[in-house]
Amino acid sequence: MLRIAVLGAGRIGKIHAANVAADRRLKLVVVADPNEAAAAELASSLACDFSLDCGAAVDREDVDAVIIGTPTDTHIDLTLRAVRLGKPVLCEKPIDLDIDRALAAVEEIERLQGKVMLAFNRRFDPDAMALKKAIRDGEVGDVRQVVITSRDPGLAPREYLRHSGGIFRDMTIHDFDTARWLLGEDPVEVMAMGNRLVDPGLEEIPDFDSVMVLLRTASGKQCHINNSRQAAYGFDQRVEVFGSKGMVLNENHRPSSLRRWTSGATEARDPLLNFFLERHADSYRVELNAFIDTLQSGTAMPATPRDGIRALHIANCALEAAQSGRTVRI
Amino acid sequence: MLRIAVLGAGRIGKIHAANVAADRRLKLVVVADPNEAAAAELASSLACDFSLDCGAAVDREDVDAVIIGTPTDTHIDLTLRAVRLGKPVLCEKPIDLDIDRALAAVEEIERLQGKVMLAFNRRFDPDAMALKKAIRDGEVGDVRQVVITSRDPGLAPREYLRHSGGIFRDMTIHDFDTARWLLGEDPVEVMAMGNRLVDPGLEEIPDFDSVMVLLRTASGKQCHINNSRQAAYGFDQRVEVFGSKGMVLNENHRPSSLRRWTSGATEARDPLLNFFLERHADSYRVELNAFIDTLQSGTAMPATPRDGIRALHIANCALEAAQSGRTVRI
Amino acid sequence: MLRIAVLGAGRIGKIHAANVAADRRLKLVVVADPNEAAAAELASSLACDFSLDCGAAVDREDVDAVIIGTPTDTHIDLTLRAVRLGKPVLCEKPIDLDIDRALAAVEEIERLQGKVMLAFNRRFDPDAMALKKAIRDGEVGDVRQVVITSRDPGLAPREYLRHSGGIFRDMTIHDFDTARWLLGEDPVEVMAMGNRLVDPGLEEIPDFDSVMVLLRTASGKQCHINNSRQAAYGFDQRVEVFGSKGMVLNENHRPSSLRRWTSGATEARDPLLNFFLERHADSYRVELNAFIDTLQSGTAMPATPRDGIRALHIANCALEAAQSGRTVRI
Amino acid sequence: MLRIAVLGAGRIGKIHAANVAADRRLKLVVVADPNEAAAAELASSLACDFSLDCGAAVDREDVDAVIIGTPTDTHIDLTLRAVRLGKPVLCEKPIDLDIDRALAAVEEIERLQGKVMLAFNRRFDPDAMALKKAIRDGEVGDVRQVVITSRDPGLAPREYLRHSGGIFRDMTIHDFDTARWLLGEDPVEVMAMGNRLVDPGLEEIPDFDSVMVLLRTASGKQCHINNSRQAAYGFDQRVEVFGSKGMVLNENHRPSSLRRWTSGATEARDPLLNFFLERHADSYRVELNAFIDTLQSGTAMPATPRDGIRALHIANCALEAAQSGRTVRI
Repeated sequence: MLRIAVLGAGRIGKIHAANVAADRRLKLVVVADPNEAAAAELASSLACDFSLDCGAAVDREDVDAVIIGTPTDTHIDLTLRAVRLGKPVLCEKPIDLDIDRALAAVEEIERLQGKVMLAFNRRFDPDAMALKKAIRDGEVGDVRQVVITSRDPGLAPREYLRHSGGIFRDMTIHDFDTARWLLGEDPVEVMAMGNRLVDPGLEEIPDFDSVMVLLRTASGKQCHINNSRQAAYGFDQRVEVFGSKGMVLNENHRPSSLRRWTSGATEARDPLLNFFLERHADSYRVELNAFIDTLQSGTAMPATPRDGIRALHIANCALEAAQSGRTVRI
Repeated sequence: MLRIAVLGAGRIGKIHAANVAADRRLKLVVVADPNEAAAAELASSLACDFSLDCGAAVDREDVDAVIIGTPTDTHIDLTLRAVRLGKPVLCEKPIDLDIDRALAAVEEIERLQGKVMLAFNRRFDPDAMALKKAIRDGEVGDVRQVVITSRDPGLAPREYLRHSGGIFRDMTIHDFDTARWLLGEDPVEVMAMGNRLVDPGLEEIPDFDSVMVLLRTASGKQCHINNSRQAAYGFDQRVEVFGSKGMVLNENHRPSSLRRWTSGATEARDPLLNFFLERHADSYRVELNAFIDTLQSGTAMPATPRDGIRALHIANCALEAAQSGRTVRI
Repeated sequence: MLRIAVLGAGRIGKIHAANVAADRRLKLVVVADPNEAAAAELASSLACDFSLDCGAAVDREDVDAVIIGTPTDTHIDLTLRAVRLGKPVLCEKPIDLDIDRALAAVEEIERLQGKVMLAFNRRFDPDAMALKKAIRDGEVGDVRQVVITSRDPGLAPREYLRHSGGIFRDMTIHDFDTARWLLGEDPVEVMAMGNRLVDPGLEEIPDFDSVMVLLRTASGKQCHINNSRQAAYGFDQRVEVFGSKGMVLNENHRPSSLRRWTSGATEARDPLLNFFLERHADSYRVELNAFIDTLQSGTAMPATPRDGIRALHIANCALEAAQSGRTVRI
Repeated sequence: MLRIAVLGAGRIGKIHAANVAADRRLKLVVVADPNEAAAAELASSLACDFSLDCGAAVDREDVDAVIIGTPTDTHIDLTLRAVRLGKPVLCEKPIDLDIDRALAAVEEIERLQGKVMLAFNRRFDPDAMALKKAIRDGEVGDVRQVVITSRDPGLAPREYLRHSGGIFRDMTIHDFDTARWLLGEDPVEVMAMGNRLVDPGLEEIPDFDSVMVLLRTASGKQCHINNSRQAAYGFDQRVEVFGSKGMVLNENHRPSSLRRWTSGATEARDPLLNFFLERHADSYRVELNAFIDTLQSGTAMPATPRDGIRALHIANCALEAAQSGRTVRI
């Protein structure tokens, strides 16, 4: 039984801790967070220890592996601390907002042969895996165009946005990883438009709330991504993969399959699942499973810190492209 | 060029007249209706003669074929008048509400080798034809169960209902014909329930507004029909054919393919097409086409007065079943 | 923490045991089954005791509540044994195939004020609950017609069918319970057709493989149920509720939301989830939850042995209706 | 009754001629095409004159208005010939592939106050009109992002492509017009990627077969267009309009609404309508209607030669952007 420390008792930490606690192959030993109330409450509900010191939790002798869901600027230190102790890590993305710091850390991890999986949970969404499988099975032939739509249900608080690193590094970065993963090649070129159509006041950060991006790989495959910080109808996540033999696409998810027929509108369906915690709940479970399976089988991590670097680099290039109005080589 | 008289300038007569006028193989010679205003207006809009005397219109030397859309109790006389002159007839259903009169007329038509097509227009609906084709092509294998849903958008006026012959002979009769046509066999047994869930006042007619029927053929194929005189969401017409190899079903139709995503409900679609004139507009054109093609090719009529007798007989048996609560042999 | 014994280590017992083991409010103490290999394997995978004696497992002092997933003919004895010890029971349906024995048992349970929930798991399916909620919220107005389609992916082995009690008591019984639950009234009348369209050899049992049923309540609400033991396209479970204000219906479920567009067919979707264990997996979890919540809140059981009696009685009446060809008063 | 000459007896000319012949307000006087066989056959089937001389057909005294469906390089001369005679023109797009020639012609038309409608038929597609109406009715609030997918079923013959003016001017130009029309503003900036993913041999023309475009208007509205010359699953035409209050999108069209459930794939639907003649058949009728209504009401043409110039200019800028890899100001 693998003994786990979960660092961070916030939104994501809670999900990881609950999934660990429900998994018979794992034992949740401790949750750590400087916020005592949050740490204590989570530990109490899941019957484990709590700690205010994340580093100390990493060090505990009865901890075999670490899951990191703390603020971004602590990811590198905590990851390296675990790696140096030979403990595997499942670390939330991004590894860091500063690409030079991130690159140095990744090189250190690779030098130490650390077992670190970066938590690109959307790769583990059952629909995303079905898309990937369809590509692998040759259902669409050679991939030619990928179209990714990703819109949030509402603008995050100004304070969150101020420290988010900007829409490309905070939101589009998921889509950059999805694009790399589904295209099966790294993009070499990016074009981007950023506008403030939801809240012109974002200029003071400065940040955009509506972006459109084009990517191209070395072999000429094309990808479009569109993002909005606010979709009136909810959290909209759609991916379409078009190739020489056909197309596969996924639909949004709803609480039930009900269809309603009334005098106003016919075949109205349930509103979308609220946000990523609801829409992607499965993906966190599957991701944890993939992490453990990988540890047990000794195979390569399905998403590495280097994947994180690559997505972050595309995000930086996209920002430069949007600001300059020029195509940027990646 | 076939010269046509259209008898009846009401709802159905107008459709037939317009379709005749738009068909380059046909010449609309005259529309006839005792209602002078209706006849004159329709004739004027389509640039043809009008007459107040339906019989005289049948007799005209410059009329080669007759389309009958007059009240039900005139169908037999007008059809026989045309048949005796050797003129082909496309006659609206039912041939008559009295099955004995209808049977005598059909025997007379058959004796005279009259070319009479009964206007079961729903057989000519493109979706219905696609269902039939799927069955013929073996897509569902052996048909086992047919489920027909047919609901009107709103209760017809009391006066109409009083003379309609009752829901089984007026509304379900379409579904009885569809059932016979899709099952490929005649039902030999019927069970039925009739209730007044929309308007209890229909008891004074007496009539039902909500019915459910079961049919069974000699080889054991089963069919369910449900009807309601009032569906809040509009004119609901669905057919499902289930067989040994699979199932085919059709959807309701809408003015456009738009899907709407708003904060209230997601993927709401356009309201349904209002009623049979809109939903089945194509079927009247295809039906007219089938009538002319049949005349030109000399093949058997795709829907005969005898088909009308059979559907009417099932309707009568269903009414008996609903009133007695007993299974009725057809 | 409620300590649970699960009786039966077969298909259903395994699901209940796994759900108990995963629930933090419960402790799985023992699984019991005369089949030693099955009991031992299940106990080992879930880290609990096993027993070959179901009765002894009920009696254990460290068992607070009992879940019964054993063969039907043991349900009454095991349920009463637990009830007499004051232990709550979640018992698989049916309570018994013999309605007189079942009725006597229910009266005994009621006399002893036993806490027994009958496992009509489909009431706890999220889609079914959404349908029920839509009715309660008045979305469809007064319910007028309910249409239930329930088709199995393939014919069960002859040996299973021989002891199943017949299609009405084994398969349609789920739909009878759903009908009662959604109609909000007990049916008072049943008409039924049974045929052998999948396998004529079922005559030797004798049993049917294809049935159509009509139900009517005292206030005149109508319900249609159709069943087939074999649907080429998989496990087909659909319910449609039609009322004065509109209609709600649920869709079948699939492993992913993918839509495929290829040269052959467009918008093809994933095959349906295989069978009830996959399609209704959620319902077993929600059902267990409802059982525990009810015990903790002291409210009335959401599905009682008497509900089981009523569904069984309708099934018996339906069989009589199908055999006699007559409408049967329930 | 308006007397019409249809110039061109090819694919498009045939459609226009048939629609004119079927319209009771119009009289088809003559069809003209240097290809005698084509002209004679079309004239014979629609019972009108034919001519080998398009100019002479324009000049005929019994011709009130002209519909031009001849090769692109004749559009300007024939249009101006009709305009100088005071005859209204419905001219196929593009007005010319050379933007300077086109601009000179449009200025001449405007100086002469010619009544010329450019045949952007897709604006008259019922789905496109429903999208536009939804925007006008405020259903999506302020438009923020438009996503247009437009893929042909198969690569056109090399000879056609060689004279097409390139994918942006031949294919994307429809989408540029749609974008302008739905955005309600002219784009001021374009980014584009062009690749040869279907047929690398197109380099010799040179032309692209797969393109992705971004457009931005002065107020910051964004639009994405993707095109492919070959979609294995058929002619794919989808438009999505996303705004502050929601989203509307249209679906592809099929011959029937049938859904098929078989053991292979469930809910497979009919293949898409083959190509633009089938998919947009309605739009040609509605377009002709709009042309006549405009003539009769004296209102402004719903699509003008200047609209054609603007779409052509965007296409030229997109080509420059794709070739240079730079953002181009429009």
